[in-house]
Amino acid sequence: MTPHISAIEVHDIRFPTSRFLHGSDAMNPDPDYSAAYCILRTSDDSNHGCGLTFTIGRGTELCVAAIQALSPRLIGLNLDDIEADLAGFWKRMVGDSQLRWLGPEKGVVHLAAAAVVNAVWDLLAKRAGKPLWRYLADMSPEQLVSAIDFSNIRDVMDADRALEILHHQRPHREARIEQLASEGHPAYTTSAGWLGYPDKQIEKLAREAAADGWQAIKIKVGRDLQDDIRRCALIRKILGEDLLLMIDANQVWEVDQAIDWIKALTPYRPHWIEEPINPDDILGHAKIKQAVAPTKVATGEHCHNRIMFKQFLQADAIDFVQIDACRLGGVNEVLAVLLMAAAYDKPVCPHAGGVGLCEYVQHLSFFDTIAVSGGENGQMIEHAGHLHEHFLDPIRVRDGHYLMPDKPGFSIEMYPDSLATYAYPHGSAWQQ
Amino acid sequence: MTPHISAIEVHDIRFPTSRFLHGSDAMNPDPDYSAAYCILRTSDDSNHGCGLTFTIGRGTELCVAAIQALSPRLIGLNLDDIEADLAGFWKRMVGDSQLRWLGPEKGVVHLAAAAVVNAVWDLLAKRAGKPLWRYLADMSPEQLVSAIDFSNIRDVMDADRALEILHHQRPHREARIEQLASEGHPAYTTSAGWLGYPDKQIEKLAREAAADGWQAIKIKVGRDLQDDIRRCALIRKILGEDLLLMIDANQVWEVDQAIDWIKALTPYRPHWIEEPINPDDILGHAKIKQAVAPTKVATGEHCHNRIMFKQFLQADAIDFVQIDACRLGGVNEVLAVLLMAAAYDKPVCPHAGGVGLCEYVQHLSFFDTIAVSGGENGQMIEHAGHLHEHFLDPIRVRDGHYLMPDKPGFSIEMYPDSLATYAYPHGSAWQQ
Repeated sequence: MTPHISAIEVHDIRFPTSRFLHGSDAMNPDPDYSAAYCILRTSDDSNHGCGLTFTIGRGTELCVAAIQALSPRLIGLNLDDIEADLAGFWKRMVGDSQLRWLGPEKGVVHLAAAAVVNAVWDLLAKRAGKPLWRYLADMSPEQLVSAIDFSNIRDVMDADRALEILHHQRPHREARIEQLASEGHPAYTTSAGWLGYPDKQIEKLAREAAADGWQAIKIKVGRDLQDDIRRCALIRKILGEDLLLMIDANQVWEVDQAIDWIKALTPYRPHWIEEPINPDDILGHAKIKQAVAPTKVATGEHCHNRIMFKQFLQADAIDFVQIDACRLGGVNEVLAVLLMAAAYDKPVCPHAGGVGLCEYVQHLSFFDTIAVSGGENGQMIEHAGHLHEHFLDPIRVRDGHYLMPDKPGFSIEMYPDSLATYAYPHGSAWQQ
Repeated sequence: MTPHISAIEVHDIRFPTSRFLHGSDAMNPDPDYSAAYCILRTSDDSNHGCGLTFTIGRGTELCVAAIQALSPRLIGLNLDDIEADLAGFWKRMVGDSQLRWLGPEKGVVHLAAAAVVNAVWDLLAKRAGKPLWRYLADMSPEQLVSAIDFSNIRDVMDADRALEILHHQRPHREARIEQLASEGHPAYTTSAGWLGYPDKQIEKLAREAAADGWQAIKIKVGRDLQDDIRRCALIRKILGEDLLLMIDANQVWEVDQAIDWIKALTPYRPHWIEEPINPDDILGHAKIKQAVAPTKVATGEHCHNRIMFKQFLQADAIDFVQIDACRLGGVNEVLAVLLMAAAYDKPVCPHAGGVGLCEYVQHLSFFDTIAVSGGENGQMIEHAGHLHEHFLDPIRVRDGHYLMPDKPGFSIEMYPDSLATYAYPHGSAWQQ
């Protein structure tokens, strides 16, 4: 008999990052990067799957409790059965009719679903002995399509259209893998420009980033226009005109205010403005996008499901699709969004940073470039330098690129020591 | 010194309604009507405030935990200070930057915020010795506006536009109160047509509803087209052509499927189709609304915040605005949506039923008719007959109308016996 999922451990892990203003932006002044982290055990103990949903401190316990609420739907599932009906498995995780009332497909319950869904993909990839990106890339177009729930997006994407895209890309698969293995995947860094950092620190970090080979840098804006002008000018002065400079307002503006503010920063040629307004405001983004060209518009780290992304694309409201590996309900829903983005010819540039997000999304971008989008449209992976030391298979970056992950799984497994030290509230990191 | 909020009790209350298929629809086959219920105590024990967020069983514990997570932001607040800055109070409840990550303003955390926000309004109204609708109606336009957070909706509604609407309605206040006191507020009933009921039961309930004076009835559709045709025909046969018949699909269709299905039911002249598709799909609703006229489109019980309602209105995607008293973040956010609906001349017909929702929303509709919309555009309150016996101040209906609530507060306080019996999982109702 093939193994089934026999137990789920859930951990509340929090890092006291607010003590150093890492991750500080106009909306989130003092995040403690955190995760509701789970480990799936199997009946034969041959493998285990790990997953997490990223949070920023208070409320992590709610995601932990939501993972526990989902556990009865997961325990006992046979791995072969899951693999044979991946869309059915996903619907089971997001489709409990009573839990669904608390979303639907958004908020705490959807974040928790992402943790367990991703843990299952980690488990399946480990069992296959492949990094997740390759596990996906080795699936046939038909297998990939069978992993996707097309409900509520069929007016834009269904199995037939998905197959068309995947078959169209199929012949380029080996060449792209070869190229990515030698060059890595294009990326940009966010480590230089947190809002809580003084100018001196930004200058130092920007110089270091350039020396490390980064050609695209993102900074936080939105608290004070004069500050933003000074910081953008500083970055341009240090790094010249060739650099891609992205700016990120983390949702703090009103629609018309966003337009004025972005226009005031246009002389510094931002490549995109990220999260100018509330993430639910699709029509607001569309208005901004019209008004601020040639500056482009990016959003998605708070875009909570495929139905919202569908509309961002339908309304021509964004230029860059910033999927999040655990805001969406895990790999299955990410696949749906990658396909819609490809259909609309919009590059996917995943949200990363926090804790574990870089480890997660590298797999999604490598797969996207290999099998869905082709990666020739400005696709980049976000990079931030924090907390990678807690992962068994941390990201590796070189010259502004992510190197191809090569260990089995989704790279999201954390060291037992880290789980113990940063356990909230009883780990030693919280006893000071 | 005026009293402050000194303690919060939270209860997980569940009614085993799934045993009787009350509340069964195409999306929710077996809800156990439930609530995360809270009681706010004050330092002088002169009053207490009650609030709940409605759930349908599993996951209620998550809303309970989220209320507990919000509690530190509430304990110690002085009632006079809250009353002097109601918008500031609301922002405090939804604005914790770490908890906000789990939404923002959606899902479990927003549902929990609604419970505590509504409990505070219950407390303030009780302290003033007024039913909530009158507490609101006695506020000046300027006071009402000071209770609203206009952030993220200023492109459609701000303080100036709100004042214009409220001042315009002000002269009609007393006459409307008089009329509502004598006639009650128009309503419709959903008690007849749950999807789990057999035809015989529907026929019996529909006849009883007509005998009780209901002139508007809603039934559930969406599981099987032939069933729906047979049920619509049955209702029309029993109750004639003058009745308003609403149909509710509870989100089960795809966009194009919805259009075909609704057209097949058009001969039975549905007044509206409710929740034809996923509640996040604003543009999908707009397409359906265009296609199925003269049948109108209603949604909102899962519309999670003012920003989503703003877009439903901007996109001309709905005809009826079905606010929910605890899906939105409580009274403050409801006020914002009432004003936007009035600005777009769309009637607000609140979602009710479940447990406590009828008690809640009657106050919102009475206030809307008195002070915001004028109520001359087909405004109705939903009615369902279950579980009112657990409330100290239950709704009263007569001839298809809600009678005006006259006891102080928000009518949401439950009997201690009910809290004990239906406490989950240890109450006696769950020991069978």
